[in-house]
Amino acid sequence: MDEKIDPWGSIQVKDYGETIDKFGINSMDDLDNEIPGSNRLFTRDIIYGQRDFDKVLKAKKKNEDFAMMTGMMPSGKFHFGHKLVADMIKYFQNLGADVYVAVADIEAYLTRDMPLEKTREIAIKEYLRNYIALGIDVDKLDFYFQSEGSTNYNKMSKMFSKNITQNELEAIYGEMDPGKTISVLTQAADILKPQFEENGGPKPVVVPVGIDQDPHIRLTRDIASRFKETDFVKPSSIYTKFMRGITGGKMSSSDPKSYIALNDSIEDAKKKIDSAKTGGKQSLEEHRKKGADVEEDVVFELLAFNLIDDDERLRDIYRRYDSGEMLSGELKQIAKEEMENFLEEHHKKLERADKKIAKMFPQT
Amino acid sequence: MDEKIDPWGSIQVKDYGETIDKFGINSMDDLDNEIPGSNRLFTRDIIYGQRDFDKVLKAKKKNEDFAMMTGMMPSGKFHFGHKLVADMIKYFQNLGADVYVAVADIEAYLTRDMPLEKTREIAIKEYLRNYIALGIDVDKLDFYFQSEGSTNYNKMSKMFSKNITQNELEAIYGEMDPGKTISVLTQAADILKPQFEENGGPKPVVVPVGIDQDPHIRLTRDIASRFKETDFVKPSSIYTKFMRGITGGKMSSSDPKSYIALNDSIEDAKKKIDSAKTGGKQSLEEHRKKGADVEEDVVFELLAFNLIDDDERLRDIYRRYDSGEMLSGELKQIAKEEMENFLEEHHKKLERADKKIAKMFPQT
Repeated sequence: MDEKIDPWGSIQVKDYGETIDKFGINSMDDLDNEIPGSNRLFTRDIIYGQRDFDKVLKAKKKNEDFAMMTGMMPSGKFHFGHKLVADMIKYFQNLGADVYVAVADIEAYLTRDMPLEKTREIAIKEYLRNYIALGIDVDKLDFYFQSEGSTNYNKMSKMFSKNITQNELEAIYGEMDPGKTISVLTQAADILKPQFEENGGPKPVVVPVGIDQDPHIRLTRDIASRFKETDFVKPSSIYTKFMRGITGGKMSSSDPKSYIALNDSIEDAKKKIDSAKTGGKQSLEEHRKKGADVEEDVVFELLAFNLIDDDERLRDIYRRYDSGEMLSGELKQIAKEEMENFLEEHHKKLERADKKIAKMFPQT
Repeated sequence: MDEKIDPWGSIQVKDYGETIDKFGINSMDDLDNEIPGSNRLFTRDIIYGQRDFDKVLKAKKKNEDFAMMTGMMPSGKFHFGHKLVADMIKYFQNLGADVYVAVADIEAYLTRDMPLEKTREIAIKEYLRNYIALGIDVDKLDFYFQSEGSTNYNKMSKMFSKNITQNELEAIYGEMDPGKTISVLTQAADILKPQFEENGGPKPVVVPVGIDQDPHIRLTRDIASRFKETDFVKPSSIYTKFMRGITGGKMSSSDPKSYIALNDSIEDAKKKIDSAKTGGKQSLEEHRKKGADVEEDVVFELLAFNLIDDDERLRDIYRRYDSGEMLSGELKQIAKEEMENFLEEHHKKLERADKKIAKMFPQT
């Protein structure tokens, strides 16, 4: 893994422990006992690293204001990888955080040539619709588009440019161009927006990211500490694992075979599970003898990250699969049943969400 | 003169003809007969060069929409150098142009470390107040602050970053930093704003600039022709000579001895004229014999650029001074009388302008 990470490129992580060492992130281990509730995001190490997350936990403990912010660059269907982020929104919203969701339409336009209207449509019809169906209280979200930011948001984003040098940008991101510079400064405004005066800052803010987005966090933390006109708390971050694609590679919005979308038909979803990369051994004999490579199994990941709530049950499945007692086909059968249960319910909720969407965005 | 011009640096031009050749600007000569009215800005070659100015003249002729835009980075008192720009605003406003005045508070913050509030105060109390006193109809101006631009203005400025490369920026401006990148893109939005949909674009727009600002014009013309989402007419520009400082060097807001401010006391203004660099010869004998170097004379420039309207009278003064018939002291005497007349009247108008200012910006 290279020391320099390109947040606009593609990334697959083999060893999360390595990213902790290389990028100076802190492990979640020290804070494990401080995490409120027992959400699988934390108990199953889906969130594996952090910077300054204790600031947020302290604010929660003291009943002080804190916020969570996340950004999205929607490029296709809302899938189980995205659901992880929605789960985090829900978790922090229930914890009492003000939640900010930035639709990165400017960044998508500048770095992916995506028209603003297209991004807007996907953000609303795929992401927001699924947020509602997943039980997020969208009335309490600050769900906004980078292209429609307030005067102050835009002013701050411009002012931030004074706090960083070209050399620093190039050290963090490699070769820069004006579009990347704008993307980076806009992201900084997104991350610091919860602390703007009109939002009652300064206050602790946590940003859940994949390690590929860490450059933005590092840069924004520097900006926060250097900016003179407004006081900012350096933003906190938590680092989430990437869900692998169904066939074992990267989960990618541009490759529908690599993900299960939350509005895929039950039939399609089951077919995709059937096609999934497993950790099962080549022969039955070998599997019974050596057991499965559970860590390599995408179906088990789907169960652990998304479909099975009960820790005890998941542990049992792990044990049986790992020992070779359970076969890949049996694991897939469990996943297909859980998937069917989930999607059947979720599709109904999606339909119910349409009314809310029409109310929030009558023009869409 | 270097091929590369730094718009954030300082500049003095010895030979304006040379700038026409070096920067691919067109002379005003071809258009001389097309200029409506007989404003001294044009008849005295204060405006000496142009790009695409014929587009604006054609629109005027055909009674079609056109606009004039100018920006200011206010840093001190409003002086006779600034008055030239005000005269242009007045000229184009009378011609029927929609006039846009951008207060470059973001640029001043990023490139000169000037707090936004300070820029705002100077822009209103010095510039706008003098505009009113000079007879500009400020109700018809779009007088705005970069930091307070609309959502669309900010969106466009960000989108423009896609149309230029880092190499192009560096070829035009030399070494870049994030603050300069933001300044440049914000300026592009200023220059193209009169053509935004909400302002009835596309349409011809003329931007009067000194040659030091030409890089912004060139870049914005490129952006205008490359931008896909909105149609723009490539902006036109006219190039004005710089007024020299009273003592012969650069006129600089940071050196009060170098300029006469429009709210200087009559006494101070006269003293400054007495201290001015002239084109008179060392001895009376030599002066009578060879005549004055009128082109070197700052006092004559003050008369020509600002204080004497009557072309015939100015020509007569030129002739007598150039021949040696008139002495520097006599020229200064004329300037002091004209200055007294002007300032006496103008100071009254400034007082009357205060009411208007208080109405427009009650909080200031």
